Amino acid sequence: MAKELTPRSENYSQWYNDLVVKADLAETSAVRGCMVIKPYGYAIWEKMQRALDDMFKETGHVNAYFPLLIPKSFLSREAEHVEGFAKECAVVTHHRLMNDPNGKGVVVDPEARLEEELIIRPTSETIIWNTYKNWISSYRDLPILCNQWANVMRWEMRTRLFLRTAEFLWQEGHTAHATREEAEEEAQKMLRVYADFAEKWMAVPVIKGVKSANERFAGALDTYTIEALMQDGKALQSGTSHFLGQNFAKAFDVQFVNKENKLEYVWATSWGVSTRLMGALIMSHSDDNGLVLPPKLAPIQVVIVPIYKKEEELAAISEKALQLVADLKALGISVKFDDNDQKKPGWKFAEYELKGVPVRVAMGPRDLEKGEAEIARRDTLTKEQMPFEGLAQRIKLLLDEIQDNIYRKALTFRDSMITCVDSYDEFKRVLIEKGGFVSAHWDGTTETEEKIKEETKATIRCIPFGNQPEEGTCIYSGKPSHQRVLFAISY
Amino acid sequence: MAKELTPRSENYSQWYNDLVVKADLAETSAVRGCMVIKPYGYAIWEKMQRALDDMFKETGHVNAYFPLLIPKSFLSREAEHVEGFAKECAVVTHHRLMNDPNGKGVVVDPEARLEEELIIRPTSETIIWNTYKNWISSYRDLPILCNQWANVMRWEMRTRLFLRTAEFLWQEGHTAHATREEAEEEAQKMLRVYADFAEKWMAVPVIKGVKSANERFAGALDTYTIEALMQDGKALQSGTSHFLGQNFAKAFDVQFVNKENKLEYVWATSWGVSTRLMGALIMSHSDDNGLVLPPKLAPIQVVIVPIYKKEEELAAISEKALQLVADLKALGISVKFDDNDQKKPGWKFAEYELKGVPVRVAMGPRDLEKGEAEIARRDTLTKEQMPFEGLAQRIKLLLDEIQDNIYRKALTFRDSMITCVDSYDEFKRVLIEKGGFVSAHWDGTTETEEKIKEETKATIRCIPFGNQPEEGTCIYSGKPSHQRVLFAISY
Repeated sequence: MAKELTPRSENYSQWYNDLVVKADLAETSAVRGCMVIKPYGYAIWEKMQRALDDMFKETGHVNAYFPLLIPKSFLSREAEHVEGFAKECAVVTHHRLMNDPNGKGVVVDPEARLEEELIIRPTSETIIWNTYKNWISSYRDLPILCNQWANVMRWEMRTRLFLRTAEFLWQEGHTAHATREEAEEEAQKMLRVYADFAEKWMAVPVIKGVKSANERFAGALDTYTIEALMQDGKALQSGTSHFLGQNFAKAFDVQFVNKENKLEYVWATSWGVSTRLMGALIMSHSDDNGLVLPPKLAPIQVVIVPIYKKEEELAAISEKALQLVADLKALGISVKFDDNDQKKPGWKFAEYELKGVPVRVAMGPRDLEKGEAEIARRDTLTKEQMPFEGLAQRIKLLLDEIQDNIYRKALTFRDSMITCVDSYDEFKRVLIEKGGFVSAHWDGTTETEEKIKEETKATIRCIPFGNQPEEGTCIYSGKPSHQRVLFAISY
Repeated sequence: MAKELTPRSENYSQWYNDLVVKADLAETSAVRGCMVIKPYGYAIWEKMQRALDDMFKETGHVNAYFPLLIPKSFLSREAEHVEGFAKECAVVTHHRLMNDPNGKGVVVDPEARLEEELIIRPTSETIIWNTYKNWISSYRDLPILCNQWANVMRWEMRTRLFLRTAEFLWQEGHTAHATREEAEEEAQKMLRVYADFAEKWMAVPVIKGVKSANERFAGALDTYTIEALMQDGKALQSGTSHFLGQNFAKAFDVQFVNKENKLEYVWATSWGVSTRLMGALIMSHSDDNGLVLPPKLAPIQVVIVPIYKKEEELAAISEKALQLVADLKALGISVKFDDNDQKKPGWKFAEYELKGVPVRVAMGPRDLEKGEAEIARRDTLTKEQMPFEGLAQRIKLLLDEIQDNIYRKALTFRDSMITCVDSYDEFKRVLIEKGGFVSAHWDGTTETEEKIKEETKATIRCIPFGNQPEEGTCIYSGKPSHQRVLFAISY
């Protein structure tokens, strides 16, 4: 088969790249670190967008659009933010090209230098808070609950399709509030929305928690995160929500008159998920045969493949197949009847397995005689004969079962990969031999965190919400600790 | 009233700007020529996007995403394209900032100069055809029917909100075909989709036609256009579709093996509409009181305003109002019940007129007694008492009637503004005294076209589809002409 993937056991990283390219999800482009998202990959992203956007709107948010370019000086207004974000970014210095006076092509027109350089947004807190300044004067103007779907750019040195690219697509919510409590609740609420989306739509179980100071977003007082576990035992940060305190309001002088008629700085949050979720989706469920997609995000939920030798066989099968197509569509299920006669059924089976279509229906003359069809599940790779009678309804239930099964499988794996350890030796051994999340006592200092990272590559993924207090000693420093935190090697 | 608009008769251009800002559609940003699209404006754009996207998908297109940045050298591959597009654009020259060694803030790191400059896409033909090269080898790979929703940037000198901004949002379709005929049909089909959208959703009548050579897209063999007429008698090009021939395939060496097993260059189209449509929508229908939105694109289709003095009156009205809200929602109608007690009904009436909400329902104690409500139409500014019984259904019909009425009104105006002239004096007089489209004989040369533009500012908007052949003489040169073309002064 032309589209064979490197097996996961041989080289997980190569398997991932093979899969992304061969399943037509994305590919590298002529521009360093930037990807082309191909139609099949984009169709999955669109389904994610639609579901997330509905969830944002249900929680009272509206969409808006802010400029792609940010004046350089904005970035240095918030001191921590510039350290974390403003360095590796695309800088626009000129606004015109001219014909090369020495020959072919075009060159930058030296006369068209900008007075102040502009940066392609790596994230939009600065330009948005500069805008909010004009929108807010009284508590009556609050809260502002805006979201933006946009492209952003960070000049990453090592890039991987979907997981880390120079340009990526994302949404960024930016909210403004009259009180600290309201902003904190908003940041946590949006993290819950992300967790719900990951679990109910992507079928990816996640751990909700708060980041250590060291792993916080540049400019935030608290960063909340959802952490997922990939099949190779590495963690993947899948969405973050930040309580920004009054930092950006102070940097951009955004004050409001509160109910007591006093001037006060506005409280802020921001939160985002990106096309990185595509990486999480792919790596959570897929296998050596290709993608495994949860039915709720699959662009094609059911494919029907006719098995025939003679034209009249195809005609008879088509009649049954088109009836099934109509029945499935009436139930809101996306379905493709692949009667392309240039390709053999075996080729099609492999192709739709690669593409992760959740349910495959095969129909041959003998099935027709018996009044049934062969139904194959992508998640378990099992096959079953089912009668035509009530087939669409049965497939609908099957899709729900697959969605559920994919989630439970990922959850069982994830839960089996959380290991409690009480010594640094055990910690290191688990990281090497097993991987996954390691739950361990930590003394709460950035110093210890960085030492552990240096020696093992593991970082604190989060301090889980609802963590039980537990007295213990830090696995690294031996100092007292009051709770366990989750470490892992991550993407 | 704080939000008064400059009357159209006094200063149409100022009226437009006032309206865009005061109705919370968009505002200028800190970045020259770039706008912030505010939530209310964006909600209209989202409705446009959704409707267009559905139409693209119904005609077999899929979405994808290509890089924001384009290598400078790509732009000069297609000779005409670079002349038309590559000059006024944002140029990325560096990929890193550093702390200013002399003090505060950040500066561009001179070490981080890019080997080849990158351009923020002004349009994506070049990067997309460079990608298609890898997707196409046989006629079996064709057609490719891709669309992209994206931001683009053109460094315009004079900008106006929505109509001409440095950054704007748009969709760009890029298709690849095995035959000339198929590509030409595709370009025309998409123009028909645009015209349908303009007329059925935006309620904006448009004239479909082909551009003269002079007004063609840089790199196209033919550019098709839909042209709308604004209330001030100026034309607005609202969407274009280009038959690109084999120009980009040749520039990027994209060949395929055809059914006769011979290598051939691929045939191409591209087509786009942008946030400029927001300008067309606003200027087609709105009046001195504010926006007039066609119901199909109105974020809020119906607003209910309670008229009361005492709390118990509000309670009684609310009961009725919430029932109406539920009934309208059940019919798929978006509705807002504005019971905010900080604002007087008069303020609310003016505000929702400004925002273009198509139907306003007012309910006071006396209406309740009589079992009716006051229904006001935004398009005609008329009011009518209607019984509660069957009110939601009546409003649904009213919304259809308003959609229809807005379109007919614009159509009647547009048709009254097409004037046939047979001399250059008459041509000039009509342009000055009346405006609108002027239908006149033209000798078919670019020279004449440019002279007329120089002397009158009028350009050939299009040669309408289905134009009747008619013998005559060019109004400017007196040379023979075989058909009339449409001139206008345009945005």
